[in-house]
Amino acid sequence: MLSKNQGKYIKSLQIKKYRKQEQKFLVEGAKSIQELLASSFEVDWLLMTEEFAQSLDAKAINRANSHFILSEKDLSALSSFENNNSGLAVVRCKPNQPLKIQNEYALVLDDVKDPGNLGTIIRIADWYGISKIICSENSAEFYNPKVISATMGSFTRVQLFYTDLIPFLSSAQLPIMGALLEGEVLHTFNFPKAGLLVMGNESNGISAEVRPFIQHALHIPGYGHAESLNVGVATAIFCDNIRRSLA
Amino acid sequence: MLSKNQGKYIKSLQIKKYRKQEQKFLVEGAKSIQELLASSFEVDWLLMTEEFAQSLDAKAINRANSHFILSEKDLSALSSFENNNSGLAVVRCKPNQPLKIQNEYALVLDDVKDPGNLGTIIRIADWYGISKIICSENSAEFYNPKVISATMGSFTRVQLFYTDLIPFLSSAQLPIMGALLEGEVLHTFNFPKAGLLVMGNESNGISAEVRPFIQHALHIPGYGHAESLNVGVATAIFCDNIRRSLA
Repeated sequence: MLSKNQGKYIKSLQIKKYRKQEQKFLVEGAKSIQELLASSFEVDWLLMTEEFAQSLDAKAINRANSHFILSEKDLSALSSFENNNSGLAVVRCKPNQPLKIQNEYALVLDDVKDPGNLGTIIRIADWYGISKIICSENSAEFYNPKVISATMGSFTRVQLFYTDLIPFLSSAQLPIMGALLEGEVLHTFNFPKAGLLVMGNESNGISAEVRPFIQHALHIPGYGHAESLNVGVATAIFCDNIRRSLA
Repeated sequence: MLSKNQGKYIKSLQIKKYRKQEQKFLVEGAKSIQELLASSFEVDWLLMTEEFAQSLDAKAINRANSHFILSEKDLSALSSFENNNSGLAVVRCKPNQPLKIQNEYALVLDDVKDPGNLGTIIRIADWYGISKIICSENSAEFYNPKVISATMGSFTRVQLFYTDLIPFLSSAQLPIMGALLEGEVLHTFNFPKAGLLVMGNESNGISAEVRPFIQHALHIPGYGHAESLNVGVATAIFCDNIRRSLA
């Protein structure tokens, strides 16, 4: 049985400060947990409803160092979801390490702040076969439960590295493209075989410090009156155009 | 000065039942209110902070039947936003009326349930010059404050009509395309000059009842491992491909 202190510990991991201190994070919901148990993440505790436990095979459950069966009510009380009828896991964070980017596309996020947007972008990257994302240090935190949940399991396949973008871009070996309203139309751009695609902050776009590094400024043509698109939506349109262009 | 009862009335409009009964809805935040005051919606009350009022011109403010100056604290207490430092308006709903669709693209939403997704789709439609959306009766409600807010002002330019999709599609005169996982790749599809694009529910996609009406089933090719894309993201990719194809 889960102790009161274990319950408190789990709830504390909804807060960034404790995730950072403990180097642990929460994964919640059926789809995310299924993907988690098939991934390389180390799972400390796995909390499940009886019904959800029966839907998993024993080998998957044994990936967790400990597991617990709870009622839906008790599980929901520990979850960041309003209602959780499947499971919750306490998982170890991976170290923040530089990523080797070679002959491939990677995303570079310049202060994407909203956790839902970051999660959506990770899911989009995974859809389009992009497995590496470089984030500025002030971007939303990968381990935020809202990010993990919005990825719909893709957090297990896409690696993130948080770093100061200026030195990173200064030493980058690949062509650097960026989403900028004043850029050329992306529909007719011939994308290189590999590169870095920089997407900017929700309100301010790509920052003044990062702009000088953009070698190809591109924009999504509009045909109506909306002033902008959400950064997740814009990332998806860029990725789709890159894949079309390379096909 | 705003009375207590007026305050209660405003708060009641956060609830669907009262919006329906009163045929009024709320518009919140600077961008949405600026667009509102430039639109054809009838504005009953306009509540503003002193600072936001000074940013608007008198003619725009006079579009409202009454206006009130409030502190940021008092305004936030009435708002669905956690913090509202600009304004809030009580606006009259427009009647739910059939839309004449001719020589153009329109979207058809088959039970898109999440208000954020509906709002995002309205914003995307507006970006791509699509001004009409047909929604199944169980789709998210246009006048939900989360929908209005997610449109970023595009609610003033895109018309929605809620109806039973079966008779609507039965009598449609335009080609009907639909987003279906088993469809052909949309990158190489030659889109007709005009048509209806059907997008399905977040969990179940296009319903069994609507599928027989889809003349061209299309899908967005994936290159990685994510199982699906968010419906707002998918709508954007479809709209972008339609515009590319017609260029």
